[in-house]
Amino acid sequence: MEVVRALYRLSVGEDRVAERAETLALEQTVELPRSCIRYSRIEREVVGRVGAIEPDPRDGFRVEIRYPVETTALDPAQLLTVLLGNASLQEDVALLDVELPPSLREALGGPRFGIDGVRRAAGVEGRPLTCVALKPMGSTAEELAALCGTFARAGIDVVKDDHGIADTPACPLEARVRACVAAIDRAADATGRRTLYAPNVVGPPAAVRRQVERARELGAGAVLAAPLVLGLPAFWELGSTAGIPVLAHPALGGASRLALPLLLGTLLRLYGADAVVFPHAGGRFPFGHELCHELADRMRRPWQGIRAALPVPAGGMSVERVGEMVSFYGDDAMLLVGGTLYEAGDGLEARTRLFVERVRAAAAREPGRTGL
Amino acid sequence: MEVVRALYRLSVGEDRVAERAETLALEQTVELPRSCIRYSRIEREVVGRVGAIEPDPRDGFRVEIRYPVETTALDPAQLLTVLLGNASLQEDVALLDVELPPSLREALGGPRFGIDGVRRAAGVEGRPLTCVALKPMGSTAEELAALCGTFARAGIDVVKDDHGIADTPACPLEARVRACVAAIDRAADATGRRTLYAPNVVGPPAAVRRQVERARELGAGAVLAAPLVLGLPAFWELGSTAGIPVLAHPALGGASRLALPLLLGTLLRLYGADAVVFPHAGGRFPFGHELCHELADRMRRPWQGIRAALPVPAGGMSVERVGEMVSFYGDDAMLLVGGTLYEAGDGLEARTRLFVERVRAAAAREPGRTGL
Repeated sequence: MEVVRALYRLSVGEDRVAERAETLALEQTVELPRSCIRYSRIEREVVGRVGAIEPDPRDGFRVEIRYPVETTALDPAQLLTVLLGNASLQEDVALLDVELPPSLREALGGPRFGIDGVRRAAGVEGRPLTCVALKPMGSTAEELAALCGTFARAGIDVVKDDHGIADTPACPLEARVRACVAAIDRAADATGRRTLYAPNVVGPPAAVRRQVERARELGAGAVLAAPLVLGLPAFWELGSTAGIPVLAHPALGGASRLALPLLLGTLLRLYGADAVVFPHAGGRFPFGHELCHELADRMRRPWQGIRAALPVPAGGMSVERVGEMVSFYGDDAMLLVGGTLYEAGDGLEARTRLFVERVRAAAAREPGRTGL
Repeated sequence: MEVVRALYRLSVGEDRVAERAETLALEQTVELPRSCIRYSRIEREVVGRVGAIEPDPRDGFRVEIRYPVETTALDPAQLLTVLLGNASLQEDVALLDVELPPSLREALGGPRFGIDGVRRAAGVEGRPLTCVALKPMGSTAEELAALCGTFARAGIDVVKDDHGIADTPACPLEARVRACVAAIDRAADATGRRTLYAPNVVGPPAAVRRQVERARELGAGAVLAAPLVLGLPAFWELGSTAGIPVLAHPALGGASRLALPLLLGTLLRLYGADAVVFPHAGGRFPFGHELCHELADRMRRPWQGIRAALPVPAGGMSVERVGEMVSFYGDDAMLLVGGTLYEAGDGLEARTRLFVERVRAAAAREPGRTGL
């Protein structure tokens, strides 16, 4: 069986590390306690397996977990989910490294051009390439093209846009590429060498697709994009269809510097989530009551012209906590009970019915409350 | 002028906070020292402005920066770049909150259904909704549909897939939705109430688009997706085209738990970056020589069947450091010099030419070295 080997740092003590590794392997695959897995096939072929556990020189332990490759669906997005999806919300876990089996490496494929392709596109061998950025954001296409010409005449191999330069009315991508390519052409007539231009592409997938196509048609020999801004799966798709080399910019590489109230409470609403799942306090994620309160408030409070998003507290919730949660969140919430229902085994339907009835009963006791 | 107000925590002392706030405002917009901005229009209309600075109860200071809305291009991806792109790599910055002007709120739009729409889709008013997850990953469509029927008979309002359930040969989305919707229909005949089913969608944008379309056509009344896995801009596009409510899952919400060597050195290569920009040691980002060494090594070392990606050290580099960088990285690198070239003002072409010549000279001194 092909496996993905993931190496984590678990910041826990020696007495807890084996158990913690086991819960991590379950969290990232079945999201159920081992006792709730009904089929031995799933235990054998789906659940992550804990491998070597060694002290980490920095903190806690280094733990290898082996995931059957099928859990990743050989998909660029699903791989992220398996490697770090829920665990990214748990403060004692860091993903340090990953080793992929051939099938997954082949499915993702890596660079379509790589070092050799970039060298060919820039016409440079046997020495490091040189590269500069067109700056600043807010310049017109003509201003950027003038700089581009300057750099091309000076013999730079690759000129890229600053990653903050977007496709705007004041400096549309199309005008920018036309003007910069023309400036490079003029310089090439003089110097005999042609500088490679990589305009920045940024936006939702459809916009990025259009930008890449236009850039390529107009003579850009490469593009620049920020994978963590676009999302790694969207970046993967960009690369698989671009037809020219893709330079990656590290912007947003330290994304957790987005405060959780902002990220889960505000940005997901702004980006169109109709309902947002998040861990309720007291479950298996370190979300306190104060954070949950703020998350629900940010999702529901009036915000000029933008609909409210439905808070969906979840994460280790149980039927026993329904009353508390209804009081805490009020009516405009969706209570999500996960693994604990499955602990009922054959009593699943009855336990579920109890959950449903408790919500109705709790809501009837305090009609119309808004929670929080 | 409409502005985006961003609230940051800067973990610095009182003596440095004003200067640090100014460099942040420049970093997130023009990426140039103020002295290198050639046009007053750009200083007036593009550069972020530092607003109120107040002590933060937790650490350092809370600093408001106001960005002209034009810097965001009214685009879901570009907004992230402006708010936290480069700053996310700087350890003393955290983005705490953001306030948007009407034009940007309108452009992004927020939830298409929101609380009311989810309530309508589920047929629930005046009490919290109930929701459960179909588990575990690795189950067949029939096994999940049996669970779905159980939950529907028990009166659950919303049944969602676990966020780890992908579109796989063993459990294709289409078969899953068909079977679960059929199970819900049978339960509805018995109970008179119809449970809402939200299958999980995951993948690169084109795959997600197909999955959402098929799910909707086959009777799923909503979908589940993990915005931080798909990328926020791709998630935004999903919501704008889905036609049914979208539930968001918080997976990967703490993404910086991805170690930087893995994220920038390995994952970007795996996801198809032909060249990867990253801050070289000694610039304005806290990347040490050891980390830079590891990044370049991960991008270039043989990795069965996957092309090497070209390391592009950047970030506050100068012409003076060319020799050092060529020795450090060797030939297979692209040296990216940014803002410091612009400090030459009208001497830009000459300074650039010097950069080009120094790279050629340094490479000629030690031909064929591989660096590291």
